[in-house]
Amino acid sequence: MSSPKRGPRLDIRDGRVELAHGAGGREGVRLVEEIFHANFGNEWLSRKDDQASVRGGERMVVTTDSFVVTPLFFPGGDIGSLAVHGAINDVAMAGAEPAYLTAAFILEEGFPLADLRRIAASMGEAARAARTPIVAGDTKVVERGKGDGVFISMTGVGFLAKDLGLSADRARPGDAVLLSGSIGDHGVAIMSRRENLEFATALASDSAPLHGLVRQMTAAAGEHLRVMRDPTRGGLAATLNEIAQQSKVGFLIDEARIPVKPPVAAACEFLGLDPLNVANEGKLVAIAAPEGAETLLRAMRAHPLGRDAAIIGQAIEDEDLFVQMRTLIGGRRIVDWLAGEQLPRIC
Amino acid sequence: MSSPKRGPRLDIRDGRVELAHGAGGREGVRLVEEIFHANFGNEWLSRKDDQASVRGGERMVVTTDSFVVTPLFFPGGDIGSLAVHGAINDVAMAGAEPAYLTAAFILEEGFPLADLRRIAASMGEAARAARTPIVAGDTKVVERGKGDGVFISMTGVGFLAKDLGLSADRARPGDAVLLSGSIGDHGVAIMSRRENLEFATALASDSAPLHGLVRQMTAAAGEHLRVMRDPTRGGLAATLNEIAQQSKVGFLIDEARIPVKPPVAAACEFLGLDPLNVANEGKLVAIAAPEGAETLLRAMRAHPLGRDAAIIGQAIEDEDLFVQMRTLIGGRRIVDWLAGEQLPRIC
Repeated sequence: MSSPKRGPRLDIRDGRVELAHGAGGREGVRLVEEIFHANFGNEWLSRKDDQASVRGGERMVVTTDSFVVTPLFFPGGDIGSLAVHGAINDVAMAGAEPAYLTAAFILEEGFPLADLRRIAASMGEAARAARTPIVAGDTKVVERGKGDGVFISMTGVGFLAKDLGLSADRARPGDAVLLSGSIGDHGVAIMSRRENLEFATALASDSAPLHGLVRQMTAAAGEHLRVMRDPTRGGLAATLNEIAQQSKVGFLIDEARIPVKPPVAAACEFLGLDPLNVANEGKLVAIAAPEGAETLLRAMRAHPLGRDAAIIGQAIEDEDLFVQMRTLIGGRRIVDWLAGEQLPRIC
Repeated sequence: MSSPKRGPRLDIRDGRVELAHGAGGREGVRLVEEIFHANFGNEWLSRKDDQASVRGGERMVVTTDSFVVTPLFFPGGDIGSLAVHGAINDVAMAGAEPAYLTAAFILEEGFPLADLRRIAASMGEAARAARTPIVAGDTKVVERGKGDGVFISMTGVGFLAKDLGLSADRARPGDAVLLSGSIGDHGVAIMSRRENLEFATALASDSAPLHGLVRQMTAAAGEHLRVMRDPTRGGLAATLNEIAQQSKVGFLIDEARIPVKPPVAAACEFLGLDPLNVANEGKLVAIAAPEGAETLLRAMRAHPLGRDAAIIGQAIEDEDLFVQMRTLIGGRRIVDWLAGEQLPRIC
């Protein structure tokens, strides 16, 4: 088994930004730790969650993400709805109710206003559907050739009615790993569209707001829930590896239990991708205490966005912090982070 | 007098994004209103402040801005410290105490890591100096030629100990207009650096966090304060025109009372710029009830960032909502928004 260790340190003196630094893999973790955390260091960032839970009168959660997806419009959504769903989901993963959004746009000179309006309309619709208004914003324009159409940075603010203490460092050996549905839909829809694949008509992004599903999960499982994460960039493989690192556990998952839609599997085979590395935008991974796992699974399946939910494995003791998978043919393999940047600008 | 009316509606069907849409002028207002507000419409956005004040346990303020300044490093700061100060200042303009920041980075493939670390170090230092931690973040990388080094989107969250009800629609005829110091420093420092002006050595950005100054102002003037704004993109001219539109008043200001440093005035003359249109990053405009103006001025002058503060004019009744200026030679002229994009990527 090759070792999924953390790789060499950044060469800050002579190194340059590579696409791999944005890929949701080990290189990106290095960049964030050695450049951003090293300079911004504080108790919130050092938790390495996708959002910060800070004091307000109630407990407040704040999260931010930039969206640079290409193409801007794709089956199942566009950069606007994706940005709204992404921010809502990062807030929801803390077990919080999303309350407000802000949007900052970086537009390229020459971008068609009709496309911009279409994106704004889609954002407005997604925000209204989730009852999460976009309360502040900003617009910058850069010269032609200095941007790429439109980039959107979304910030989400939410409140925790009750602090469940969800955090990626809380998985313990024996905990169950739950997945809310099929993997790979978003990334494969984007890549197929980019490559103009003929059979891509059957594929659509799973982009969706998960706070309703999360509400049912927290109501049902409460303190049995330990970690929630949405497996976006880097896919399920990156998410489980991140949790393994932060919780100091290993994982053993079962390939037969991981839902992959047949056209997604076909497209992955054609494109040379592993669905485990492919981004999702409407799915979540939950780690739960074993005694709460079945209750949680039932609650997930009772929601439209969790009807294909499954218990896909468990956390195990492993000083190497490996994510391992029992394969369909009965072997075991290491599920590693994505190496390099196979899937640029997927979100 | 030419009419500073709002100009033609956007041609959404065939129009394209122009640099002018990002210039802090009338075109930008059109874009935001017809594309973003039209689609996101809600009570917070319709106030047209630079930040949203939303419910929390305490009253919370949230603001977001993207930074695309070029060059990335300039006398008096860099894109990182500028982003931190910009977010802090937008929160402070609501009379709130900045509490938390988030940062989203869009990096171009090939950007030197040493430069990125220098920017991150500057951000960390600025955030610590202001006691406003960066609690969450995100990093995306785009291909070479699809971005321009680094863009940063900063979100600021703050809390109002006491809601002063500051808003750009609260100026009334007779109110005093106060300015915290000299104008044009930031924009001229950037432009001079870009144009490699020889005499630019004397110029530096005024980039600074204004929440300390604001704290003294609100303590001293309390409810006499009606509006605060930092005159960034579009300069003092844009800020006063925005307040005029939202408050349905005119302004009459006095050129002799507006501080402009001699090297800034010289550079503006050389570059063909009007200091009134040039961006500031460490100055604020305050509109105050006449009976509180002198107290407010004293409080401002007692703070290092307000020592050159001045009362520069007053709000007047004017159904045309014009901003007028008594010139040094004794005439009057209309102070209009910046037309088009004279100063791209100034922040």
